[in-house]
Amino acid sequence: MLGSLVDTVSYVAQLIGVAVFAASGCLSGGQKRMDLFGVTVVGSVTALGGGTLRDLVLDQPVFWVIDNAYLLVAGVSVAATFFLVRYLRAPKGTLLVLDALGLALFTVLGAQKALDLGTTLLIAVMMSAMTGAVGGLLRDLLCNELPRMFFSRDLYATPALAGAATYVALSKFEPITSLPMVAGFSVTLALRLASLKLNLGLPVFRDRHSGAGEKDGEV
Amino acid sequence: MLGSLVDTVSYVAQLIGVAVFAASGCLSGGQKRMDLFGVTVVGSVTALGGGTLRDLVLDQPVFWVIDNAYLLVAGVSVAATFFLVRYLRAPKGTLLVLDALGLALFTVLGAQKALDLGTTLLIAVMMSAMTGAVGGLLRDLLCNELPRMFFSRDLYATPALAGAATYVALSKFEPITSLPMVAGFSVTLALRLASLKLNLGLPVFRDRHSGAGEKDGEV
Amino acid sequence: MLGSLVDTVSYVAQLIGVAVFAASGCLSGGQKRMDLFGVTVVGSVTALGGGTLRDLVLDQPVFWVIDNAYLLVAGVSVAATFFLVRYLRAPKGTLLVLDALGLALFTVLGAQKALDLGTTLLIAVMMSAMTGAVGGLLRDLLCNELPRMFFSRDLYATPALAGAATYVALSKFEPITSLPMVAGFSVTLALRLASLKLNLGLPVFRDRHSGAGEKDGEV
Repeated sequence: MLGSLVDTVSYVAQLIGVAVFAASGCLSGGQKRMDLFGVTVVGSVTALGGGTLRDLVLDQPVFWVIDNAYLLVAGVSVAATFFLVRYLRAPKGTLLVLDALGLALFTVLGAQKALDLGTTLLIAVMMSAMTGAVGGLLRDLLCNELPRMFFSRDLYATPALAGAATYVALSKFEPITSLPMVAGFSVTLALRLASLKLNLGLPVFRDRHSGAGEKDGEV
Repeated sequence: MLGSLVDTVSYVAQLIGVAVFAASGCLSGGQKRMDLFGVTVVGSVTALGGGTLRDLVLDQPVFWVIDNAYLLVAGVSVAATFFLVRYLRAPKGTLLVLDALGLALFTVLGAQKALDLGTTLLIAVMMSAMTGAVGGLLRDLLCNELPRMFFSRDLYATPALAGAATYVALSKFEPITSLPMVAGFSVTLALRLASLKLNLGLPVFRDRHSGAGEKDGEV
Repeated sequence: MLGSLVDTVSYVAQLIGVAVFAASGCLSGGQKRMDLFGVTVVGSVTALGGGTLRDLVLDQPVFWVIDNAYLLVAGVSVAATFFLVRYLRAPKGTLLVLDALGLALFTVLGAQKALDLGTTLLIAVMMSAMTGAVGGLLRDLLCNELPRMFFSRDLYATPALAGAATYVALSKFEPITSLPMVAGFSVTLALRLASLKLNLGLPVFRDRHSGAGEKDGEV
């Protein structure tokens, strides 16, 4: 009963996550003045790329091939963004909160899927971060940009890793209730929002010589 | 009898498509002054990347692992392009027509492969466009360029989507004859060539504020 | 007995290869001033990306999902590089030799894995080069650079292809002893080091018209 409620809530939240990631990809492509096809591809890859790579690596059927709702939601979200943005200014704060919600959801669901398949805990945490973060990474590659999340303006993947670790650790002790899921979700969401509010970042690569960024290095 | 003729024709046309896409990738890499290995990789990925991704997503054996002829044709095409281009000017019009032919073929064959596996119609259309268009997208990524087909100078993926939809719709009613194949192929080819001739394009992303292209956006 | 020694040696050497490739990726990301998460992703993808693509294409379980030691070694290597580089100058010559060692090992192991699965010889050679070279290619994509190995400053993939061909050819005659492995490894290593020493390179794409590199071409 509660389980089935959690399932419904998490399915709906996942579709919201897909919609938000698709809108984010559409806006990124739009800033490059791509056409309708371009923003559709970038939006869909942003929304579905992380879960697709996870499913390929775990040798599972790709989730959107099984349930086309994900594809449809991504498509509708891109189309809505494409047309609405001509009339409205994108509400940046709202989008960031929705994106954090999507990240938190994808994180927990990615970890759950891996654990259900009997992977090690390390792999479960990795699959989780992959589900949440790879979409944004592919978005930036398609837009010919360095991946934003690799540069510490705020924390993006770290909250996902922390949330996934929370989820994975708790599931050892609470395999039945939805406590691990709620906790993993909350940790990811709270850390992500806190990092935005407080401008938290990770240490940046810095070698002994000040000019690390300028040299065209080679190994 | 007719079926076997269609099979032979479509196999040969597919190899021509591979050769043309490989030449296109080789020329793109060449414009960056890549070496023989570089243009071979870019050419092969352009020719085989779309079908490879399709096979991975549908959990099928990768087509060029099963039938090495595709690899060999891609390699020979790159080598021929690499050496001939020193003496000849690439016949641009001819290449565009051959590329359209390859696109039309890949489109229909991608849809057919998906339908044969019992996917939904939506997935069949997507796999079809993926087979035709992802190679060119990966080519541009490897050359560190924004994907050309995301910018409306002409229609590229739209003809593939239209042709795939035609094929998929007709196969419901004509599962046995090769009419759906011929129709899907013709629609893709005709739309692609018409868009080149008439400079047709898709609407471009444009937000309320004129300077969309300049701002370094973030979501 | 000897076989088991070869197994142990090749496993250890493979982990060294992973560590070196991960360090190489970390340094590349570091030159872009990425944060700890960024260099970890670039390092891991450099170390594990080639083998991952090989396993996906051959429809095998992904090697680091099965044996997490690869992941751990990549992570430790990135962390060590990240912190040590603040105090030490990276010993470039040493890194190049270790990288050549990793390349030679990955090459032979990639070919072996493919042959064990009963692929054709051509596919075995390709999988081999893929295992050795794709990691470095993905590293450059993530750093938004043209793939270094596509530009002939020295030979990188060619030694891998030659070593793989040696291994594959010899395994037809010597399926039991480890002679093919040692020979394939040695050919790759020797050619790679010789090309660095002697500045050997492949022919570069050059068309009839001198300005090939400047024109923004299109096919």
